Amino acid sequence: HRSKLPDVGTTIFTVIGQLSAQHNAINLSQGAPNFSPDPKLIAGVTKAMLDNHNQYSAMTGLAPLKTLIAEKVETLYGAHYDANDEVLITASASEGLYSAISGLVHPGDEVIYFEPSFDSYAPIVRLQGAKPVALKLALPDFSVNWDEVRAAITPRTRMIIINTPHNPSGQIFSAHDLEMLAALTRNTDIVILSDEVYEHIVFDGKRHHGMATHPQLAERSVIISSFGKTFHVTGWRVGYCLAPAALMDEICKVHQFLMFSADTPMQYAFADYMADPQTYLSLAAFYQRKRDLMQSLLAESPFKLLPSAGSFFLLASFDHFSDESDSEMVKRLITEHGVATIPLSAFYTDGTDNKLIRLSFAKDEATLRAGAQALCRLK
Amino acid sequence: HRSKLPDVGTTIFTVIGQLSAQHNAINLSQGAPNFSPDPKLIAGVTKAMLDNHNQYSAMTGLAPLKTLIAEKVETLYGAHYDANDEVLITASASEGLYSAISGLVHPGDEVIYFEPSFDSYAPIVRLQGAKPVALKLALPDFSVNWDEVRAAITPRTRMIIINTPHNPSGQIFSAHDLEMLAALTRNTDIVILSDEVYEHIVFDGKRHHGMATHPQLAERSVIISSFGKTFHVTGWRVGYCLAPAALMDEICKVHQFLMFSADTPMQYAFADYMADPQTYLSLAAFYQRKRDLMQSLLAESPFKLLPSAGSFFLLASFDHFSDESDSEMVKRLITEHGVATIPLSAFYTDGTDNKLIRLSFAKDEATLRAGAQALCRLK
Ligand SMILES: CSCCC(=O)C(=O)O
Ligand SMILES: CSCCC(=O)C(=O)O
Repeated sequence: HRSKLPDVGTTIFTVIGQLSAQHNAINLSQGAPNFSPDPKLIAGVTKAMLDNHNQYSAMTGLAPLKTLIAEKVETLYGAHYDANDEVLITASASEGLYSAISGLVHPGDEVIYFEPSFDSYAPIVRLQGAKPVALKLALPDFSVNWDEVRAAITPRTRMIIINTPHNPSGQIFSAHDLEMLAALTRNTDIVILSDEVYEHIVFDGKRHHGMATHPQLAERSVIISSFGKTFHVTGWRVGYCLAPAALMDEICKVHQFLMFSADTPMQYAFADYMADPQTYLSLAAFYQRKRDLMQSLLAESPFKLLPSAGSFFLLASFDHFSDESDSEMVKRLITEHGVATIPLSAFYTDGTDNKLIRLSFAKDEATLRAGAQALCRLK
Repeated sequence: HRSKLPDVGTTIFTVIGQLSAQHNAINLSQGAPNFSPDPKLIAGVTKAMLDNHNQYSAMTGLAPLKTLIAEKVETLYGAHYDANDEVLITASASEGLYSAISGLVHPGDEVIYFEPSFDSYAPIVRLQGAKPVALKLALPDFSVNWDEVRAAITPRTRMIIINTPHNPSGQIFSAHDLEMLAALTRNTDIVILSDEVYEHIVFDGKRHHGMATHPQLAERSVIISSFGKTFHVTGWRVGYCLAPAALMDEICKVHQFLMFSADTPMQYAFADYMADPQTYLSLAAFYQRKRDLMQSLLAESPFKLLPSAGSFFLLASFDHFSDESDSEMVKRLITEHGVATIPLSAFYTDGTDNKLIRLSFAKDEATLRAGAQALCRLK
């Protein structure tokens, strides 16, 4: 069979996950907690199921949950979204990204995005018959070079994909970044697709500069977020999408046929649970402790850690002590030292190797200690 | 914004659902039960959540669930699928249909399907830059005219979409249909996409002639099924897909980026629950009782019912007593008589009106009685 994605193999998260399981390694690879969510949240799902909320929800999502999201976004970021027409509950942030790109990007369009990048963006763009245009973030701080963005914009540019806090680097957008993006897109019909699934995981008292914090950008943005990342339930497959009504209409045309609706009992549980803002406002401190612990545990390791300002990822450099490729390093760490991470080269379509590996610190303390110990043993 | 689906509005199931809710009508429209699943199944989800199965499952699904599916298909239909490489757990049958079409259909391809049809097929094909080719099923028995299919096949035909048992007509494929389909596709590279979400709802002792019952067709088929329809939990969003490995590889390339994985606690619950085949083998008798009840209750109504051989839908004709359009009839039934159904014209891209409405009998007895009473009151 002719392939529509001839250069695409199995996603790195599955490849490394399987290798990790084979070697019974401590798994710091995929961005998923290994600890339990709040028992109250689980009880909420059980209650919803027993209350007979087991059939299709409304296509765009459960109304009270959409209202809570709109209220949260207004309170935290000052942006107004109509709960009915401008909030969509998706069956995972992944589905939201897919429906947004599929609904808005036409064949022949160009879509600018930044590498290293989460591995779904470019293939989804290619599936639309459109052209992904990768710009490289500048090391070591993974900042956007806005002059390069300006130079990359053409009349065919339909979309720019942003991801802040950034997976895999942990870097975050600044107010300056938002200004630059606003200036470059003013008077164009470019849509911003902003993957903000780590919106509540920003460290050191900094704020999240998402698209909803900037009125001019919000007008042209589709914002994607996740309940799974925020409430420690990545396997429950619920996310959400915010967009002005005209954009949302086109996204829903895809969503309604691709998915129809997201999981109903989980939506009821989230609606109950996040009525208390502490459930998500406490997340930054929770993960900051884990980041700090991991940084201190790895101080003794041969790796040099790059700073992480958000997300639950840390990058570790080994350039100064090994000339292995990052894939060789990851393989050796799994097979010889029993700890799994992701090679940063997997986040570049051209396989750029910066001698960096990505660790997820969304793990319980025992796992972080054991993983750090394994990394410290490396010679 | 230029639309990728300029002719597509909000799905009929949402439009009618909202109208039905506004008028507090008895809802026989969307194909979703209004009764509870087995409490054992709910307990299974709760157990999985408490056992800490709340994070991403494997990308292709939970291994024990995939094994059970492969065993079921082998036992019931005699087809062998490799549980690892040829079974995919999807986040709903809808997602399976989308991933299959998106993974296999290229721009410029033609896809043959039959109308009346579930409303997602044609738009998903169009989103690939491919051409949906609608053939009309012959009334009153909604049979396939195989000569028309032969005439419609061109060198660009990449896929034929089958749906048996058929939504909305309740008709099922015969062994003869399978033979005709096999003969027409022999020595071509046409893929069959077979939507068999009602596979366990076939009445009157007949068997389900799905693609897995015909070895030659199985080789070129992607089969889609649903846990939601089978276990009365349409809001849990889990389905599955069967395909030979070479086809499955391409489907997974889309699935992994579109969705990554299906709901984890629900997958654990299904794996526990369907270990007992009675859980799905009892379904045909369960729904046959509802069909029979609805048929007897509506004997007094002005409508003439068409026979239903499978699924949980019945078509009712009003040609002999009204010259309203089917949409007008549906609107009048909701607003004046408090009962919601779906106009069959919504299942035709050209709006063909056969003066038929679709009723779902996936409802508890009180709802069926109340709905039938409302339909009987019609003058
Ligand atoms: C769906 S992929 C896994 C989660 C993730 O975001 C990551 O590990 O980068
Ligand atoms: C996801 S749409 C609703 C269910 C269905 O199959 C139908 O009503 O035809």
